[in-house]
Amino acid sequence: MTSVTVLGLGPMGHALAAAFAAAHHTTTVWNRTPGRGDDLDATTAGAAAEAIAASPLVVVCVRDHEAVRSVLDADALQGRTLVNFTGGSPRQARTMAAWAEQHGVDHLDGVVVATPELVGGPGATLFYSGPSHVYEAHRSTLAALGGNANHLGEDPGRAAAFDASLQDLFWTAISGVVHAFALAAAEGIDANDLARHAKAVLGLFPDLVDHIADQVTAGRFPGDSSTITAAAAAMDHVLDTIRANGLDNGVLGAARAEVRRAIDAGHGSEGFARLAAL
Amino acid sequence: MTSVTVLGLGPMGHALAAAFAAAHHTTTVWNRTPGRGDDLDATTAGAAAEAIAASPLVVVCVRDHEAVRSVLDADALQGRTLVNFTGGSPRQARTMAAWAEQHGVDHLDGVVVATPELVGGPGATLFYSGPSHVYEAHRSTLAALGGNANHLGEDPGRAAAFDASLQDLFWTAISGVVHAFALAAAEGIDANDLARHAKAVLGLFPDLVDHIADQVTAGRFPGDSSTITAAAAAMDHVLDTIRANGLDNGVLGAARAEVRRAIDAGHGSEGFARLAAL
Repeated sequence: MTSVTVLGLGPMGHALAAAFAAAHHTTTVWNRTPGRGDDLDATTAGAAAEAIAASPLVVVCVRDHEAVRSVLDADALQGRTLVNFTGGSPRQARTMAAWAEQHGVDHLDGVVVATPELVGGPGATLFYSGPSHVYEAHRSTLAALGGNANHLGEDPGRAAAFDASLQDLFWTAISGVVHAFALAAAEGIDANDLARHAKAVLGLFPDLVDHIADQVTAGRFPGDSSTITAAAAAMDHVLDTIRANGLDNGVLGAARAEVRRAIDAGHGSEGFARLAAL
Repeated sequence: MTSVTVLGLGPMGHALAAAFAAAHHTTTVWNRTPGRGDDLDATTAGAAAEAIAASPLVVVCVRDHEAVRSVLDADALQGRTLVNFTGGSPRQARTMAAWAEQHGVDHLDGVVVATPELVGGPGATLFYSGPSHVYEAHRSTLAALGGNANHLGEDPGRAAAFDASLQDLFWTAISGVVHAFALAAAEGIDANDLARHAKAVLGLFPDLVDHIADQVTAGRFPGDSSTITAAAAAMDHVLDTIRANGLDNGVLGAARAEVRRAIDAGHGSEGFARLAAL
């Protein structure tokens, strides 16, 4: 078992530290506000530099990249490996990698694609990007964080880029889900009655995702089974019903506007996947 | 086997007629533009009224509700049952039901929740609303159209209301999917690499749908596992990355605006499902 330091004990940092400790790694923790790690099977350091000095592998998970830089001590990190789970953009991850390289620190950018409760479990997904040899050197220790670990590439921004794309999907789709419940409620439909059919509709998506990926890869978007123009007509029906119920139509309205731009650009007879490549 | 008439032979009407014929119902068809039904095992009528007169069950599937009214002959329909699969709003379905009642015509509103290719197959979903006794009288004939038929209630607008809610979900979510592919492409991520992880994210949705339905039903939206404020921060990260790539952020931007309104209304510490009940 190796020694690991976790800097930052918000809900996610706390879950990371707990997962390392549960896997019997010697765990040292530090948080700007004291007291957060008292329930952990870990040593609490009095200062960040002291925590960093305790372990060859240092994990940081704080509010934002600005906070990362205020917490990290380049001298203390010398010769160690830093894995940064702080949320940020691909560009921020690349900037952090450049800073680490400049200071002789091995660096991986990490993303936890799971809620804190799932961390450490077999279903927790984690993304990493950065040098393969750094990932391989710590792979078995990092495995404590979840059963579905993915090294996505050497570009340090790649984990954040995957994360941003998937969160784009997630937050847009979940906004559609809650709006569907709002519309159903306005029409007097019971939430559980809608849920059953909503899950059936969502069950169509895995095949659709593959179909879209194939078209994006091929760079061809035949509108054989349904066209962007047909999508516009269907959306207009829904928007009429949303408006008739006095609801805000913001999200679907924005989707409709993107469809309008695609039609104006001459893509009306192509398939919906065309919108991924405009 | 009974006799069925199908008015309108666009892609969906044609699929409905083919499914009735395949189930050995005596099928009569009519389309404003002749020639569309030549490949069907059906009798082609020269006029809509003649087609209506041929069968006790009359199915109509044309461009819109205005076209329905121009096609239907109240005298010819007398004593028959009309099932209207023409797309429209709940209000339009209720208006059509009132017209039918006024003319002594039994009426169901129908929605095909499937592409034409799936019609008649075991997986095709159909929604119906209107009087239960009318549905029950024709249930076995209508079963030819697909294996998953649902009578959703007596309110004639109910099938269209379910359909609008589910299409709200579908078009919003699919817009998120194609935008995720656009963002991934801008970040140099291969479409098939994204697809694998996108399907994993979509795999979270059935449980989320049940969770949201439970909260909507209870009218309580505890932000225990994640709050609207946390969602706003996550969306802002994604929007930064979208903008850094020079992409349009319309759909997620609109979702973010809805979140802002919820926070402004004092719901920041509640769960995301709160947005379904504002």
